Amino acid sequence: MNEFELIARLTRDLPAHPAVVAGPGDDCALIDLGVPDRWVVLKTDAVAEGVHFTRETPSEQVGHKALGRVLSDFAAAAAQPKAVLVTLALPTGFEAERVEGVYRGLRRLADRWSVALVGGETIAHHGPLSLSVAAVGWVARDRVVRRSGGQPGDALFVTGELGGSREGRHLDFEPRLEEAWWLAEHFLPHAMVDLSDGLAGDLRHLMTASRVGADLMQSALPISAAARRRARAGEGAKSPVLAALTDGEDFELLMAVPSGQAVRLLDGWKSRFPGVRLSCIGRLTNQPGLRLCEPGGVRTLADHGHVHFS
Amino acid sequence: MNEFELIARLTRDLPAHPAVVAGPGDDCALIDLGVPDRWVVLKTDAVAEGVHFTRETPSEQVGHKALGRVLSDFAAAAAQPKAVLVTLALPTGFEAERVEGVYRGLRRLADRWSVALVGGETIAHHGPLSLSVAAVGWVARDRVVRRSGGQPGDALFVTGELGGSREGRHLDFEPRLEEAWWLAEHFLPHAMVDLSDGLAGDLRHLMTASRVGADLMQSALPISAAARRRARAGEGAKSPVLAALTDGEDFELLMAVPSGQAVRLLDGWKSRFPGVRLSCIGRLTNQPGLRLCEPGGVRTLADHGHVHFS
Repeated sequence: MNEFELIARLTRDLPAHPAVVAGPGDDCALIDLGVPDRWVVLKTDAVAEGVHFTRETPSEQVGHKALGRVLSDFAAAAAQPKAVLVTLALPTGFEAERVEGVYRGLRRLADRWSVALVGGETIAHHGPLSLSVAAVGWVARDRVVRRSGGQPGDALFVTGELGGSREGRHLDFEPRLEEAWWLAEHFLPHAMVDLSDGLAGDLRHLMTASRVGADLMQSALPISAAARRRARAGEGAKSPVLAALTDGEDFELLMAVPSGQAVRLLDGWKSRFPGVRLSCIGRLTNQPGLRLCEPGGVRTLADHGHVHFS
Repeated sequence: MNEFELIARLTRDLPAHPAVVAGPGDDCALIDLGVPDRWVVLKTDAVAEGVHFTRETPSEQVGHKALGRVLSDFAAAAAQPKAVLVTLALPTGFEAERVEGVYRGLRRLADRWSVALVGGETIAHHGPLSLSVAAVGWVARDRVVRRSGGQPGDALFVTGELGGSREGRHLDFEPRLEEAWWLAEHFLPHAMVDLSDGLAGDLRHLMTASRVGADLMQSALPISAAARRRARAGEGAKSPVLAALTDGEDFELLMAVPSGQAVRLLDGWKSRFPGVRLSCIGRLTNQPGLRLCEPGGVRTLADHGHVHFS
């Protein structure tokens, strides 16, 4: 067991608390603070230089990504982010210009979603630049979407295109808040998750929380042009399908919707979001495990970590 | 201007937002999420190895300190912390045992205050261990205490003893939540702040927010035994008074109370908290600036940074 598996275990074992509606394992924490028809929503996330961006990443994009990741988690719960605090860990000798750029990126995205950026702490440390973002907001109790409501037979839909995010999207994606609110208002998906670990990984989170299996149709996966480009780049490159399943940081929404609503959803989506793809990529099943249905047959995807196939 | 002054400026310049009741400059952010009689309270803070603790610090104390700092900020606002998310940045090769210890420390303190520890994110990075803690809670709108309400003539009180925290207190202090709730219920101080930067620094924050000056009585400062011990340690050591003014990380409460209530407050405190000192150490004034009244006369303390005197 490595440290990360250990932390997963430690946080899973935390004692239940009457005020906590959803804790570890969901995209956001849902807290009962006594508001009659709302949960308070809390989410934190962090990005660090050398892991989520590099020294060469434009500083505005660093700020954008740090906040965008958290807003994407709010989208997964169909929640309204309202206020954000930012904790900056600065290496010694960090340039003022870069700090200003990070704040410009944070502020531009916060302004676009009417989220209040209310400051936060700054510490100097002997490490690389990192930002921790904490956001608070709310969701109507009867509109919240979680990971755990998926049912066998539900159709699986995904927004946008998958794979190759490292070519640029991971730094300038727009969190799918508008889409999530619309979905919750008109369709109330049984379950939803945002794609940060890659389709295969995040679908597994949804499957685990909902205690179901899933079939994916390979031919239906919306593979991005970036993933196809990278696949052509040479030896050792991932196939486009593998990239769509495992690249991660797509920040799209994956949802489970009653199959009877599938056609109405696709029609409604097309007229409301004509510029964004919505693809039906498979369904939830009673049979445990994750399967990829290809023209040549059905393949079961491995349980742990990334998908290994040729 | 260094990066930290820049960030102070950047966060001061953030646009006003209708949902934000208190933002940068107060101990906690107060957010209006539509609860009729309550504000939602949000606070984040971070600690890093090499800055707030060392490799040798027992891991439980690392967790305790990380959460305790945030709960101390809730105490300053007389607010109720309810749920906490923790973001861990782990160096490569971090030992599982140390992670468990950090969580034990977090959990013990959270349990003691009925605060739900609802997990959080973990990232691997190329730097030292750091923890960022985000807490959410609430405060009754008519009971909140802020930094900005101090008035000339108010008596200044401080809990506990000051200085020398580095000898141990900074790792095992108990946040003054119980005391703060009692104060807000029975006396509603005009202004309050928790002492993290040292009495001189944090009093200045209160003075700036309240637009007042202050006189401190040197002979009334509750100097800790640790500060006196360190003063005797040898050449170059701070005097006990200087230590009480500038050591920082005392995590005590400093408050401004109408002078007419001073006697009643001291009496009530003694019977409610017999084990904790409460000292009247001076008063707020119309005259700007911070003055130290000594047996030999009055000295004005420098405006910026730490107090420089012999």
